[in-house]
Amino acid sequence: MSQPLRLKKNADRRLKAGHLWIYSNEVDIRETPLKAFESGALARVEEANGRAIGVAYVNPNSLICARIMSRDPAMKIDRSLFVHRFKQALSLREQFYAQPFYRLIHGEGDLLPGLVIDRFGDILVVQLNTAGMQALSEAIVDALEKVIKPSAIVFRNDTGGRRQEGLEAQVEVVKGTLPDEVLIEENGARFVVPVLDGQKTGWFFDHRDNRAWLNRHVAGKRVLDVFSYVGGWGVQAAASGASEVLCVDSSAPALERVARNAELNGLQEQVAIGQGDAFEVLAALKAEGEQFDVVVLDPPAFIKKRKDIPNGERAYARLNREAMRLLGRDGLLLSASCSMHLAPERLVDVVRGAVRHQDRHGQVIFQGHQSADHPIHPAIPETAYLKALGVRVFRD
Amino acid sequence: MSQPLRLKKNADRRLKAGHLWIYSNEVDIRETPLKAFESGALARVEEANGRAIGVAYVNPNSLICARIMSRDPAMKIDRSLFVHRFKQALSLREQFYAQPFYRLIHGEGDLLPGLVIDRFGDILVVQLNTAGMQALSEAIVDALEKVIKPSAIVFRNDTGGRRQEGLEAQVEVVKGTLPDEVLIEENGARFVVPVLDGQKTGWFFDHRDNRAWLNRHVAGKRVLDVFSYVGGWGVQAAASGASEVLCVDSSAPALERVARNAELNGLQEQVAIGQGDAFEVLAALKAEGEQFDVVVLDPPAFIKKRKDIPNGERAYARLNREAMRLLGRDGLLLSASCSMHLAPERLVDVVRGAVRHQDRHGQVIFQGHQSADHPIHPAIPETAYLKALGVRVFRD
Repeated sequence: MSQPLRLKKNADRRLKAGHLWIYSNEVDIRETPLKAFESGALARVEEANGRAIGVAYVNPNSLICARIMSRDPAMKIDRSLFVHRFKQALSLREQFYAQPFYRLIHGEGDLLPGLVIDRFGDILVVQLNTAGMQALSEAIVDALEKVIKPSAIVFRNDTGGRRQEGLEAQVEVVKGTLPDEVLIEENGARFVVPVLDGQKTGWFFDHRDNRAWLNRHVAGKRVLDVFSYVGGWGVQAAASGASEVLCVDSSAPALERVARNAELNGLQEQVAIGQGDAFEVLAALKAEGEQFDVVVLDPPAFIKKRKDIPNGERAYARLNREAMRLLGRDGLLLSASCSMHLAPERLVDVVRGAVRHQDRHGQVIFQGHQSADHPIHPAIPETAYLKALGVRVFRD
Repeated sequence: MSQPLRLKKNADRRLKAGHLWIYSNEVDIRETPLKAFESGALARVEEANGRAIGVAYVNPNSLICARIMSRDPAMKIDRSLFVHRFKQALSLREQFYAQPFYRLIHGEGDLLPGLVIDRFGDILVVQLNTAGMQALSEAIVDALEKVIKPSAIVFRNDTGGRRQEGLEAQVEVVKGTLPDEVLIEENGARFVVPVLDGQKTGWFFDHRDNRAWLNRHVAGKRVLDVFSYVGGWGVQAAASGASEVLCVDSSAPALERVARNAELNGLQEQVAIGQGDAFEVLAALKAEGEQFDVVVLDPPAFIKKRKDIPNGERAYARLNREAMRLLGRDGLLLSASCSMHLAPERLVDVVRGAVRHQDRHGQVIFQGHQSADHPIHPAIPETAYLKALGVRVFRD
């Protein structure tokens, strides 16, 4: 029987609405001091009146001091539970995707707070983002063995969230061996995924549907892909008939992979690369009089914390303004943001400002979000983070 | 030279940000009394300092007393302007749609405030929603003749908005003759569209992409289509392999068209109809122990005005709760709202409440919006109105 964690009066309201997080100021620390918990320990969550309402794992040092693992207070948090949840998650992915390339577990959205697992065929890349999940890592690996039988499991435990949880970075192949190249297919194009040293798990499945949308509108077009990373947007655009694609990124290794991915799809002729700071490259392209039919802006999160909102919004605004200057007469801008703190309507406003700044007109003709393998928990707004706007930009 | 319409100080700010509306309390009525304008008259819009910033049409009796037709104060608002704007709009649609079935003009989103035109092949259905557009009807018809050369033009001037503008209802074939049946194809299925006596223009193109999404997930499923109208969702689901579809609507003529549309696609066996009030039918189905794999909720706007928000949200909540009870173990809910006043995150919350009410879990796996032929004007939030959530509902 695990230790009780007693909530203050009314602090259970958000949980009853379906949320899975408990903040440290919601705990009745006179009854159940947080410092009595080891980091990652399991607890029986109780309302102020003592009624048990679920099982959570605890981190006494984190602002979000506990996350619900089950609404059944008697539930054992063990391999069986993970097997059950993994099967539930797998069933959704298998209904949606013909090939085994997807996010298998999207944390809270799959009722597994703090756990992210991306699947690249037989290879699984796992992120344990909380002390609670770290403590359960053995059960997780065992359950993955049972449900997926992967040829390799990689821990990419080098996320920013882990530092806040007081956890060390750990990047390691914990089971099996990796092939020379980890390969996936997305929207009909093939890609090498740098699972050990790329960004996050190595690939961003969340934009799959947004890329599919863009792919339908690039035939014969000249495309600029800013913050290209390994070429997800740009190489797919070329594979979809874009006449010419320029992928820009600040990272030389990322651009090497763009070249490799272009080659994998026989698109060396169509895909060019340019290294540099995005803003500098945009300015240089403008100075050279370059124009594009389609510009893709898929920057890293400019807003990581609530307090970054004003500066972050200014950065998005500047980026969209600079990109807009490179669009031809009847151009298409794909403007994305993965900042959970940037509300969808704020991104529309960013685009509005950029359009007006150029005295052009804009039509938002597409509003994309994260794909189905990144399910949103309806009680947890924090699980909805991705926006992609398709904007037609023209002069009246 | 048209009459000036002088704005109060700072009242031009929203216009400079790109918006096209002027509210009556923003006009300097000492300088330019609104009652000096005839309903539908054109005006030269001036800042407080007298600088001209555009041309608008005026309705002195409307809360939105003027709408900008051009940011160029010297622009003539005539057939040529409509020809130009129609061509611009047509170019977008022709890029996106292989067949001539779409919304050709989406009011403000196509820089033509108050004008809606849907295209059903050679037949155009026009809504003139403001006195200003009514006054320009001849130029509009002439420009359509030039750009589209339709075989028939229908005025469906029976919208609620017209009453507020002090305009009479008018439903009329103003050019050519209609065939016995107006036919379209959407996502591979064929439909008869009741252009003269159906809802709005007869068809809702705005859900095209959302239906396409749902179609991919209904094979072999039992589907309930609530507020089916003429069967856009239900018949397409059947055409996409749903084993059984029940279309529910309160309108007998709509259901007759469901039957006709099922027949057109050879799907009489798969598509059943049920007439009645949605809430009563849902309760009856529950009482009979019926279950469905997929439930589609595409109700009419429950929130027409800001003051209806609380009641409207309650109606959405009740509807989603009742529908949830009919979903099987691992079900899919498609929950839509066309109420501009219901914010996207509020619809997520409606779904959240319904899921919790049944003590189930929900995953929002799709967030759909209006299709590209309903472009959103980035400065006019009112042009973004459609939401469609795809929600997986399961028991943990």
